[in-house]
Amino acid sequence: MQPNGIITLLTDFGDVDGFAGIMKGVILSINDKAKIVDISNSLPSQDIEAGSLVLDNSYRFFPKGTIHVAVVDPGVGSDRRILAVQTKDYFFIAPDNQILKHIFYNNETLTVVEVLNKTYFLDEISRTFHGRDIFAPVAAHMSLGVPLTEFGPEVADFNRGEISQPVILAKKIIGKIIHIDKFGNLITDISAKMLNKQIFSISAGSTSLPEFVDSYAHVALGTPLAIIGSSGFVEISVRNGNACEQLSLHRGDIVQVEFK
Amino acid sequence: MQPNGIITLLTDFGDVDGFAGIMKGVILSINDKAKIVDISNSLPSQDIEAGSLVLDNSYRFFPKGTIHVAVVDPGVGSDRRILAVQTKDYFFIAPDNQILKHIFYNNETLTVVEVLNKTYFLDEISRTFHGRDIFAPVAAHMSLGVPLTEFGPEVADFNRGEISQPVILAKKIIGKIIHIDKFGNLITDISAKMLNKQIFSISAGSTSLPEFVDSYAHVALGTPLAIIGSSGFVEISVRNGNACEQLSLHRGDIVQVEFK
Amino acid sequence: MQPNGIITLLTDFGDVDGFAGIMKGVILSINDKAKIVDISNSLPSQDIEAGSLVLDNSYRFFPKGTIHVAVVDPGVGSDRRILAVQTKDYFFIAPDNQILKHIFYNNETLTVVEVLNKTYFLDEISRTFHGRDIFAPVAAHMSLGVPLTEFGPEVADFNRGEISQPVILAKKIIGKIIHIDKFGNLITDISAKMLNKQIFSISAGSTSLPEFVDSYAHVALGTPLAIIGSSGFVEISVRNGNACEQLSLHRGDIVQVEFK
Repeated sequence: MQPNGIITLLTDFGDVDGFAGIMKGVILSINDKAKIVDISNSLPSQDIEAGSLVLDNSYRFFPKGTIHVAVVDPGVGSDRRILAVQTKDYFFIAPDNQILKHIFYNNETLTVVEVLNKTYFLDEISRTFHGRDIFAPVAAHMSLGVPLTEFGPEVADFNRGEISQPVILAKKIIGKIIHIDKFGNLITDISAKMLNKQIFSISAGSTSLPEFVDSYAHVALGTPLAIIGSSGFVEISVRNGNACEQLSLHRGDIVQVEFK
Repeated sequence: MQPNGIITLLTDFGDVDGFAGIMKGVILSINDKAKIVDISNSLPSQDIEAGSLVLDNSYRFFPKGTIHVAVVDPGVGSDRRILAVQTKDYFFIAPDNQILKHIFYNNETLTVVEVLNKTYFLDEISRTFHGRDIFAPVAAHMSLGVPLTEFGPEVADFNRGEISQPVILAKKIIGKIIHIDKFGNLITDISAKMLNKQIFSISAGSTSLPEFVDSYAHVALGTPLAIIGSSGFVEISVRNGNACEQLSLHRGDIVQVEFK
Repeated sequence: MQPNGIITLLTDFGDVDGFAGIMKGVILSINDKAKIVDISNSLPSQDIEAGSLVLDNSYRFFPKGTIHVAVVDPGVGSDRRILAVQTKDYFFIAPDNQILKHIFYNNETLTVVEVLNKTYFLDEISRTFHGRDIFAPVAAHMSLGVPLTEFGPEVADFNRGEISQPVILAKKIIGKIIHIDKFGNLITDISAKMLNKQIFSISAGSTSLPEFVDSYAHVALGTPLAIIGSSGFVEISVRNGNACEQLSLHRGDIVQVEFK
């Protein structure tokens, strides 16, 4: 696989201070043909968990050979490592802080290197903005065809992280809310594939929900519902409303599916 | 008219979850030469009215042949239709939920089809994210030159919607606030063209305003004013301030112009 | 220096109303090969000070020949001037309201013209949206190689503005917070170059801070710290926290460094 010239950015840098724009300037200074696409620069500050999930939902929809740069990096400036990763179809550059955990879980990684070769960094490395000084220039050089192993030595002891998994019992699945999206939809760790028996009831916190629906429009406005979301996981929503606010639920809260 | 390779996005998907970025990945997977421009991905959730107005203010400033994709789609997954529309100069793809009402009002549409041809969709269609599964791939194929009628049958009974119109009396125009922008400016449905008599007074809610001014700088800091906005409609503003907050006015509230 | 085809946008237009997208449509209508990069469109409304600082932190990371368009423009529609500026490596277009003050301070400007030549404007000029009607088309024409002096006459009496400078005493530097970033980091006007003596103590408002640290990870979670930020200025931060909120400090508040 060769890089295709597309570089995506996923950061918690926000949209006010120009941090993501600066990364784009650095990239274009090295490869003025790079196509840079924002996945998000508005992740909650330092929320590695949200970053890992948004990345997992997004990366596979880009053309093969895309370079995904994920910078949620509370350890910036410390001795935390920076990883460059190649899977069958994609490249990733990210801190070694589990933001890539879904990538490692869902892919046979071909190569994982620790990014150390300062040839490919900016000349001056700040203490607080490696997105600009390391991640962006490394991504740009990678998009020009510099092979992964040129950036540093292969490593095996990187942070694979742990993927949230529901408890699966004979007549019940006990899952968790793992993400809350912009609409207030509550995304759980219960995969559609686990729903292989006849369903008796679904509950989110103290709210009981009817059977799964095929679309929001199957219930009345303002009514809570359960649906299979766009990434294949159970989601709790409110039609034309905000389930997070209406049900007062948060990341980590329990969602259960009971079978007949 | 041929597509020019530019695709714009107007959605309520927000900037956190990567939804717009995913659409871009899908588009680039089909047409890696597409130029994708965000009009906005931060419309208020499910606010079709705001979407229709922002689209109307924006679309005509793009080069002829641009494809405009508007996804505010509370009916996703239901049997609401998806439309592809061609006017003299532009293409549009949107749910059949009146988000295109200003387009229909301001243009002689050449062709309106219902998007049904699954050849141009992603292989798997989720229940909740047709932006990714239908709108993005259809836009990408359209940008490659697939003709409108290839996406589905022509339809005549689409939702034309209704455009907010002020009441025009002999000595008075009674209009409404139809949009509030980022600065708190109150945009009304009173067009500059309607102000064809000598003006006696202007009022927004219970606030009386002086004559129209030619620029914000014509009044003191913090003072409310009436001005012809950039789309040719009467706007109520506060110089270097936020009219929405200062005057406690909302979308739907009354703005009146009295003639002498 | 020739333009390189890259145009950056820095505005307070927000991400809801499509204003920045409209500017991109205008630019692409004139130069469909322009590469447009957002530095930020979410500056606080009418905050020229923040705009000037974000621009200063960003512009130099773009390739030589980039055109930077900065529109924070409370004087729109008045007789405030619009400037086009050429330095050794970059072009700038902005209102004459000091948003370019760091550019003037840090660069020998080669040419400063007042933008007046309506040949390069849109045909109709609104009272409230010169970003669309003047800034965008002028930037697009400039990116096609129209020389600066073609846009209007050279001027010498533009607003150079004043750069915040700390008070430097024998045993103390008294600086100010000049910016607060998305993470709540407090950026001061005290440059690393000023810290040329052995440091005794640092204080931000009423909070005493230990010596400068090399990375956030050098202190415990939730602990305030002082560090040299990515632009070479003293910053006050809280590890994995928000210094602005935790220390209740604001732009303009005092930060002091005492020497031994």
